Amino acid sequence: MKLYLTESSGNAYKVRLMLGLLGVPYEKVLLDFPNKEHKQPAYLKISPRGQVPSLQDGDQVFWDSSACLVYLARKFGGEQWLPIAPAAMAEVMQWVALAGNEVQYGLQYGRGILKGIRQGDLAGCQAIGRVALATLESRLKDHDWLAFDRPTIADVANYPYVALAHEAELPLDGYPGIRAWLKRLEALPKWTPRG
Amino acid sequence: MKLYLTESSGNAYKVRLMLGLLGVPYEKVLLDFPNKEHKQPAYLKISPRGQVPSLQDGDQVFWDSSACLVYLARKFGGEQWLPIAPAAMAEVMQWVALAGNEVQYGLQYGRGILKGIRQGDLAGCQAIGRVALATLESRLKDHDWLAFDRPTIADVANYPYVALAHEAELPLDGYPGIRAWLKRLEALPKWTPRG
Repeated sequence: MKLYLTESSGNAYKVRLMLGLLGVPYEKVLLDFPNKEHKQPAYLKISPRGQVPSLQDGDQVFWDSSACLVYLARKFGGEQWLPIAPAAMAEVMQWVALAGNEVQYGLQYGRGILKGIRQGDLAGCQAIGRVALATLESRLKDHDWLAFDRPTIADVANYPYVALAHEAELPLDGYPGIRAWLKRLEALPKWTPRG
Repeated sequence: MKLYLTESSGNAYKVRLMLGLLGVPYEKVLLDFPNKEHKQPAYLKISPRGQVPSLQDGDQVFWDSSACLVYLARKFGGEQWLPIAPAAMAEVMQWVALAGNEVQYGLQYGRGILKGIRQGDLAGCQAIGRVALATLESRLKDHDWLAFDRPTIADVANYPYVALAHEAELPLDGYPGIRAWLKRLEALPKWTPRG
């Protein structure tokens, strides 16, 4: 199993977390982000969208972080991290979708603008980020996990950029449910620190 | 089965397409978009993120279009529209993720800016939209469908805003694979015209 990544990528961190939680060994393939190796033809054969992470397992390649989580959960996790019953699977996947949507375009991109990694409309990103946080808090104010009563790929997908919300200048003071959930995740056995 | 929607929502159209393809009867609940009914407390109890569509089936509510597709495919479609083997499911879900990511923030938002529905950075959206189209074309230039040799929720999720790419001022002239795929989808039995 090979994971193509950059050290700082939060989307790659989602997959590193999942590999760690499942105890699956893997090889890291570090891309040269400053020199845009992720946009070069060799890597575009692996990921046509030119983003990290991508996960390669034999002949199979997955170039989207949520697809990597689905693959790992289904292959190595039984039904613990992603159940297959229709309503249960959809419940998990709607939170995974939030991670790829409002969390990415709000929290991740807002942080990226503030760090000078990308250009864009900071206020617009922060407005989307507030929707992400409100949506998460609506669940976590009175539940331990995003789906069911246990951690799933829903939690793993949302953690990396929610934990960095303050770097998008969206502090979590008003979101006690989210703050407690972050600590709950970080206390899981086999949790991989950001590092 | 109740589908909360606005008539013009492409994300709701994904779910209408899937309900049609599966032959599942449902009731439409139209929200008053100009008066922001989707941001009012009553609807926020159904969708905490304040977006359409949401799908209600008995006690279950799903407030993300991709989760609605997962639910319907798994509940009514056997393994035809979303298989459960790890690699097969991940392959479908990575295209569904593209629909919620580059297709939404590129094609949908670029179109929305041009139509005066939303504000934002048109050039930035169009750049993301071009990544979406290049990624789709990389597959469709020599395949009929996004995953496997049959239509899945991957195709359904991407159709609505890709078919309107020209309204984001991203014409499909240079994307023959995408153009043929759109026609292939529109020729499916039980296809719901945009209407």
